[in-house]
Amino acid sequence: MQDTSSSSTYAPRRTVRSSLIEPDGGALVELVVPEAERAARRAEASRLPAVRIGPVDLEWVHVVADGWASPLRGFMREAEYLQSLHFRSLRLADGSVVNMSLPIVLAIRDEEKEAIGKAPDVALTSPAGGFVAILRRTEIYKHNKEERIARTWGTIAPGLPYVEEVITQAGNWLIGGDLEVLEPIKYNDGLDQYRLCPRELRKEFDKREADAVFAFQLRNPVHNGHALLMNDTRRRLLDMGYKNPILLLHPLGGFTKADDVPLSVRMEQHSKVLEDGVLDPKTTIVAIFPSPMHYAGPTEVQWHAKARINAGANFYIVGRDPAGMSHPTEKRDLYDPDHGKKVLGMAPGLEKLNILPFKVAAYDTVGKKMSFFDPSRAQDFLFISGTKMRTYARNGENPPDGFMCPGGWNVLVNYYQRLQNEETEKESAVVSLKS
Amino acid sequence: MQDTSSSSTYAPRRTVRSSLIEPDGGALVELVVPEAERAARRAEASRLPAVRIGPVDLEWVHVVADGWASPLRGFMREAEYLQSLHFRSLRLADGSVVNMSLPIVLAIRDEEKEAIGKAPDVALTSPAGGFVAILRRTEIYKHNKEERIARTWGTIAPGLPYVEEVITQAGNWLIGGDLEVLEPIKYNDGLDQYRLCPRELRKEFDKREADAVFAFQLRNPVHNGHALLMNDTRRRLLDMGYKNPILLLHPLGGFTKADDVPLSVRMEQHSKVLEDGVLDPKTTIVAIFPSPMHYAGPTEVQWHAKARINAGANFYIVGRDPAGMSHPTEKRDLYDPDHGKKVLGMAPGLEKLNILPFKVAAYDTVGKKMSFFDPSRAQDFLFISGTKMRTYARNGENPPDGFMCPGGWNVLVNYYQRLQNEETEKESAVVSLKS
Repeated sequence: MQDTSSSSTYAPRRTVRSSLIEPDGGALVELVVPEAERAARRAEASRLPAVRIGPVDLEWVHVVADGWASPLRGFMREAEYLQSLHFRSLRLADGSVVNMSLPIVLAIRDEEKEAIGKAPDVALTSPAGGFVAILRRTEIYKHNKEERIARTWGTIAPGLPYVEEVITQAGNWLIGGDLEVLEPIKYNDGLDQYRLCPRELRKEFDKREADAVFAFQLRNPVHNGHALLMNDTRRRLLDMGYKNPILLLHPLGGFTKADDVPLSVRMEQHSKVLEDGVLDPKTTIVAIFPSPMHYAGPTEVQWHAKARINAGANFYIVGRDPAGMSHPTEKRDLYDPDHGKKVLGMAPGLEKLNILPFKVAAYDTVGKKMSFFDPSRAQDFLFISGTKMRTYARNGENPPDGFMCPGGWNVLVNYYQRLQNEETEKESAVVSLKS
Repeated sequence: MQDTSSSSTYAPRRTVRSSLIEPDGGALVELVVPEAERAARRAEASRLPAVRIGPVDLEWVHVVADGWASPLRGFMREAEYLQSLHFRSLRLADGSVVNMSLPIVLAIRDEEKEAIGKAPDVALTSPAGGFVAILRRTEIYKHNKEERIARTWGTIAPGLPYVEEVITQAGNWLIGGDLEVLEPIKYNDGLDQYRLCPRELRKEFDKREADAVFAFQLRNPVHNGHALLMNDTRRRLLDMGYKNPILLLHPLGGFTKADDVPLSVRMEQHSKVLEDGVLDPKTTIVAIFPSPMHYAGPTEVQWHAKARINAGANFYIVGRDPAGMSHPTEKRDLYDPDHGKKVLGMAPGLEKLNILPFKVAAYDTVGKKMSFFDPSRAQDFLFISGTKMRTYARNGENPPDGFMCPGGWNVLVNYYQRLQNEETEKESAVVSLKS
């Protein structure tokens, strides 16, 4: 399937809107097999050597099939892997360069490699067992985990969530190839309607007649500081002459670390933020970005930005320490909090994207609301980190008035209440087993 | 100083030769202060806050001052460091990209940072104490060693020679700025006449009327397999229609690990190889590349190639596992032996350089000479690694006939003999101290 926006050439206004920003490589990649061909492909898959993939691998199949990684058409072969690992970009046949900062790869074990032998095509089956995709013209090459981790995270310290969840126990080989996905990936968690693919998002921006789209990547609840920033960005875009800037509020939906707030809770919280009028539903689209999270700071923020180019966003908001976390073994941030923003501004293949650096918002104890930090009266401001916010909610304490809309805050409090109840139940179960 | 080759525009033949390949950024950087200004600069230096640099830092001052790293004009500021660390390249003001795969940085300690304060200019003094350079418009930023090592080497395993020698004990800050070098860097080791800078090499290629220059980077003695390869490359270039291809035999002269053969011995060995007629002095230039060695495999080979662009070489020979070594803590090569060649072919900023992949030569036990490996009679071939070669020489054993010219081999045997005598003397000194 091709990007349908190219068919709008005859409608001048729509042309303007569809060309806010070109997808990488010029055309959106979509890799789900047309319905009429699915039965035949499924029959073929049943005759191929099969590899059972894990839940995070399945998220990557989804990401690539939707075209978030355009022009990538499958799991990376070695030439793509090496370019991603060393240069965070891919050079295309025409000499142009697209950003590709995270290796999107599929690991297999020795016995799987042996079973595949010289077969060019391989079937992928889901963790539950059904056929997911055919991987065509495969290439198998070594999975040097140490080098992959060191070059992607800038450390090999134990305790990196994606490494522990996905890489450590993975096989010593990578298999690349072109994906043909047998049907659209669904999660049946009540949130699939939020999982708009880049083509659908572009269509929605067109429908809303957006003349600028600014994307906000997040994996935390939205507090009033975020809202202030997003509303201020819209104001700045209006000042720049744009008539209808649209916010893409784009929570990450794939793998996250255990102490992050789960997607379903975040989505409920985001809905309250719109219901409570903190963000304007008329100029906001909430959708889920299906990628798993690497917590790889300056390397990962490029991926977050690049994927939004493919979805049609021509402005990207970047904050302090994007995709960062604490160092897993040392008492410091893993990344310099400024590096994400700086590296994003230098990254090959992202030149066409407008980067909007985040102004720092904090709780203004005088105004009793979230405000942009004013260093001339630094003592009036209170910084409330994600960790601190979660601690408030976990302990049933209220954050200062004006930190978050009450509806949104209740969602968090209820989540942590449920979590605590479950933990108490588990503990008493353990106690009664012991006694 | 500017690249003087641009003044040859009026002499058509010379123009052709000088434009074999453009230096990165269009003009060679040279940073030694003109003689007339040195006294004034030296007086100025004595009034500035001073940083005493180490021997490897001094090698980098030399490298940058000569223009090997053109268009870099000093130690990297943070914007250059981050681009090098993440993308192995620098984007110039005109949008073009040059390769820059190794961070060329100067570390300072907390107390040095404090002493510098807000001073824009800093004097650099040599390990021996004299003034070396002024660093202008300095910028001080954090030296995250773990991240630097992980992203440069793809591992943080203990035992990486450059890391142990230079990085581990270095300060926690990096200082960038533009270099003004107070006089040409000399080593007074009897080899300075081989330390031709890129401008001098370009002049020499012009003088020889080279229409192709192929560079061979090495840090080992030249055996007949190397010679076969270099002579074969010349033959291939002649077949391609070049009339006068010149070989730049270009041993690395800076820091190397303890068990590598020292520069002075290698230079003597190389001289014998030319004396014995294994390589033709008429079409070969032997010069020293003053860079220190990182042993950073695919990342470092880009630096080795890029520097030779600046010296005017338009062909670069790349072999198996360039700039590689054994993994310091595991029983394997640190890098996939094919990755260096592959990554070099993909590297941003090296598109204008012709990469000549190395054919594998080995000792042919039937022909009793070094030949290109023929897989159809694999059993006839003997692979003699650098380690094996050093073991032969150390034990006073002879390698098979035809492995290396006798004059060159004698140089190595004598070196290891001297080394062993010294070790024996040291041991008996220890014994006599103990007794």
